[in-house]
Amino acid sequence: MTESLDAVRRRFDAGVRALQDRIVDAVRALDPALEVREDLWERTDAAGEPGGGGRTRALSGEVVESGGVNTSCVWGAVDPAFVAQLGGQEGDRLWAAGISLILHPRNPRVPTTHANFRMIGLGGRTWFGGGADLTPYHPHLDDFRHFHRTWQEACAPLGTYAAWKAWCDRYFTNHHRDGEMRGIGGVFFDGWGGDHPAASADAVLRLGDAFLPSWIPLAARRKDEPYTEAEEDFMLHRRGRYVEFNLLHDRGTAFGLRTGGRTESILVSLPARVRFGYRWAPPEGTPQAEMMALYRPREWVG
Amino acid sequence: MTESLDAVRRRFDAGVRALQDRIVDAVRALDPALEVREDLWERTDAAGEPGGGGRTRALSGEVVESGGVNTSCVWGAVDPAFVAQLGGQEGDRLWAAGISLILHPRNPRVPTTHANFRMIGLGGRTWFGGGADLTPYHPHLDDFRHFHRTWQEACAPLGTYAAWKAWCDRYFTNHHRDGEMRGIGGVFFDGWGGDHPAASADAVLRLGDAFLPSWIPLAARRKDEPYTEAEEDFMLHRRGRYVEFNLLHDRGTAFGLRTGGRTESILVSLPARVRFGYRWAPPEGTPQAEMMALYRPREWVG
Repeated sequence: MTESLDAVRRRFDAGVRALQDRIVDAVRALDPALEVREDLWERTDAAGEPGGGGRTRALSGEVVESGGVNTSCVWGAVDPAFVAQLGGQEGDRLWAAGISLILHPRNPRVPTTHANFRMIGLGGRTWFGGGADLTPYHPHLDDFRHFHRTWQEACAPLGTYAAWKAWCDRYFTNHHRDGEMRGIGGVFFDGWGGDHPAASADAVLRLGDAFLPSWIPLAARRKDEPYTEAEEDFMLHRRGRYVEFNLLHDRGTAFGLRTGGRTESILVSLPARVRFGYRWAPPEGTPQAEMMALYRPREWVG
Repeated sequence: MTESLDAVRRRFDAGVRALQDRIVDAVRALDPALEVREDLWERTDAAGEPGGGGRTRALSGEVVESGGVNTSCVWGAVDPAFVAQLGGQEGDRLWAAGISLILHPRNPRVPTTHANFRMIGLGGRTWFGGGADLTPYHPHLDDFRHFHRTWQEACAPLGTYAAWKAWCDRYFTNHHRDGEMRGIGGVFFDGWGGDHPAASADAVLRLGDAFLPSWIPLAARRKDEPYTEAEEDFMLHRRGRYVEFNLLHDRGTAFGLRTGGRTESILVSLPARVRFGYRWAPPEGTPQAEMMALYRPREWVG
């Protein structure tokens, strides 16, 4: 018997909420001082009707300076211009569930990470999107290989690593900065899996399980490494580039703000402390200058 | 004899460059430690031809923590999608000159300010735009009245203060923050003065002369006032809202980045140090909470 689309949706929503619990528990184990601020919120759709909501968990601690691990499940009428932009037709209703997380560490030896996994329905269409990417501040090249290898293995059953890695390189790029990437990439996909929603929902939830092994070991290994003021200053300026990307280019941020998502939950992605500088660049010959050269498309696994 | 459009353009361009000199001189007189980094840059248009350039002056000092006073004069072919968005026709060429400035003070008793004045030609059309607005962090209400009164008087010959003040209130608003304004407004206009380019160019250059008397007296009066850590923290978070506005909503930033403007010159508007916080808000009953209530449309002059 084929599972109904409604049942797949409920299963996906429950799956991302269970993943949210596991991720927050793991971050708390890494960072015992972690404060978790949970907010349940509800949304009104574009027609003024109840339209779902979400569970935001904003984090601040000693290892993770700021971040969030959020889930939401929203539905109903959306702005017609936005439906058209998504390739839908007038009157199409939206259904979307997903998890989105961002972790900004305090120690520049620990990389910032972001991941999200979502299932979207618009009118009669269904698709999945998501991915995970790393924004490091110190040239621990083995760490970058570990991150990419973990996602390569997670994508192996789908045969999608090479394509999704290349997509991630293109996507997380500050086009106004001459092609400089936000970090060192990862995987990114969208518009995927619509022909077999039940099997695709399972596959995407399994992908989500790769997040913890992709990042927790790096954070555990690096969180107590000493670092210099120059390293922290570099991280704060790179966070500035992160903000530029999220507010100028990120479709997820635009999608959330345009579909009546909760502003505070969406912008929890912005790091607590940030610097911007005119013609800012690290001195030549430093590990930071080495990092600047690494924010470009590059093969990390064989 | 009617002045040719070319002559008006040259005069406007020379006028904004002279204004740039006067403004930088006045800021230096206010802030003797000011460092001015001047960069001359050239631009290639969308067809790969020489397309003008600009003179960027990035500032950092003791009174002004970061900022820029920039002029540019650009021309040539532009991206067809962008021509359409500006209401032009395929093949229309652009000509644009202007001054844009932003000053982020170190002391939260001194308000941040921004102003710009520009002349634009697209195909056969000419228009002018610009304005000035104030982003204060402390409820010195007399200062806000001084700023608005200065612009009211500057606009008096044109009879435009009420309309341009209301336009500014609407424009400098973080729509994703439930209508919260970036600051306490000022004046804003666009698409103005195309029927009489020569007279309008004079009028806009005269408007530009109001910038120094609108802001310098406030900065001079407040720059040495003692302030608390809570006041500085408030300023850093409000700078976060400034960044949100500039990257999510500001048409000037989008215009610059889309017309091949120089990224470093455009983003010199982003303040040196910034904070973001999940559900950040100042404690009730503080001057900072009073300020939050003032970031809404309000009449400042009788």
